[in-house]
Amino acid sequence: MRWIRYQYGGRVSYGILEDEQVEEVSGSPFGEYSRTGHRFPLTAVQIRIPFEPLTFYAAGINYEEHVREAAALLGREPDLPEKADIGYRANNALIAHGEPIVIPKDATERVQYEGELVAVIGKQVKRVSEDEALDCILGYTIGNDVSERTWQANDRTLWRAKNTDTFKPMGPWIETNVELDSLQTTVRVNGNAVSQFPTNNMIFGVAHYISEMTRYLTLYPGDMVWMGTDGATENIKAGDTVDVEISGIGTLSNPVIAEE
Amino acid sequence: MRWIRYQYGGRVSYGILEDEQVEEVSGSPFGEYSRTGHRFPLTAVQIRIPFEPLTFYAAGINYEEHVREAAALLGREPDLPEKADIGYRANNALIAHGEPIVIPKDATERVQYEGELVAVIGKQVKRVSEDEALDCILGYTIGNDVSERTWQANDRTLWRAKNTDTFKPMGPWIETNVELDSLQTTVRVNGNAVSQFPTNNMIFGVAHYISEMTRYLTLYPGDMVWMGTDGATENIKAGDTVDVEISGIGTLSNPVIAEE
Repeated sequence: MRWIRYQYGGRVSYGILEDEQVEEVSGSPFGEYSRTGHRFPLTAVQIRIPFEPLTFYAAGINYEEHVREAAALLGREPDLPEKADIGYRANNALIAHGEPIVIPKDATERVQYEGELVAVIGKQVKRVSEDEALDCILGYTIGNDVSERTWQANDRTLWRAKNTDTFKPMGPWIETNVELDSLQTTVRVNGNAVSQFPTNNMIFGVAHYISEMTRYLTLYPGDMVWMGTDGATENIKAGDTVDVEISGIGTLSNPVIAEE
Repeated sequence: MRWIRYQYGGRVSYGILEDEQVEEVSGSPFGEYSRTGHRFPLTAVQIRIPFEPLTFYAAGINYEEHVREAAALLGREPDLPEKADIGYRANNALIAHGEPIVIPKDATERVQYEGELVAVIGKQVKRVSEDEALDCILGYTIGNDVSERTWQANDRTLWRAKNTDTFKPMGPWIETNVELDSLQTTVRVNGNAVSQFPTNNMIFGVAHYISEMTRYLTLYPGDMVWMGTDGATENIKAGDTVDVEISGIGTLSNPVIAEE
């Protein structure tokens, strides 16, 4: 099942996407809801971010090849994480499928994509075992963890490197029926595949992260966890289009523009 | 003026606190509101966190003495921040005035208080000058940035060191009429003053932080910025009571208990 959030006739609603038709839902996927019977063509609605998250968790470094590529660029030894220490991103930076990534005037040319799987939490959990961890997940969407590498290397925190307004495209919808091992992530810039990896080839998987996190913290419906990216990443610039496809979920597509 | 958020008769509302009386408000301080005329004694309501924040920003290292004390403990040279790089904390950890800080079973004895000024954003702003930055502030409350120092030193991120459930007491209310230079922060453990400093003696002040942050990000009504702490901090343990007083705002008081 696919959950979508959209604007139609000036109103923002959740809906269920079937056969390119959106059926309006009253309520939300995080609580009670009912189908209204009102259907619109997908092409007639404006897609919004799939939900407004409560806490925005991000695994950060979570694929070996990405660690090795990043270390090589800095001339350092790769430093693989030993534990599932979760990090954070910020909601101000979220934009929907189709909305532009805006590169600030004073950014360097090293603004790069990172295609990521996003786990959306649907149930409140604390101290959940790895075996039961995936039961709290409503579904999965796609994120692009856009990063300015010069700021990432030089600032004390990741605030503007990762959380500048528009640096977190997310969508286009939430897919609830996902077989993690079958997923493949492909990033395309202007239609050319620039990165491809098995999505579940993580250092610490979704279930392990959730189990470790909930030893100390409560996860709530509406929280989300971005799971990191693999491989090398390349610069994007104004005029480009960046697509992140995860097979079985969909394709998140965003144009890149320069700040005016 | 003091904004309070409270539970009374099973319902959570915003109110205005005057002369130990809470007047119920319909609406919120972040949008439209009106006074209802219903008044209750402060002692009859259960105080909640003053609001549910959107994005939880934290300055982290922002007082010289704190940097020097922390460096001395680690046998390192003090490393003063050169720029106002903002960090993040997480809402799961927030608790209200009076609620217990729960020390996890596997925490070391190095769980410590940090008394902090909290700036509450009331207006949406982007690219605001330092001169105009304070205009977006609704008011100020008090935070205790409880930290497990062993985890803080060893984990890749601050997730459990700073964001374990109950590690972020906040309150008791928001004071809108604040003269930053006149504020004094005092932390008391079991009634004994253990830390005292001029609240505004920051490396980077509130206006500077907001101006720098909004070069890249939009601040929204309901965001907040925790401004850091000064001086040495000491261990707290089950059975203790920790008070953070900021003169002119109030006193945030929380008991400490052990996880069962």
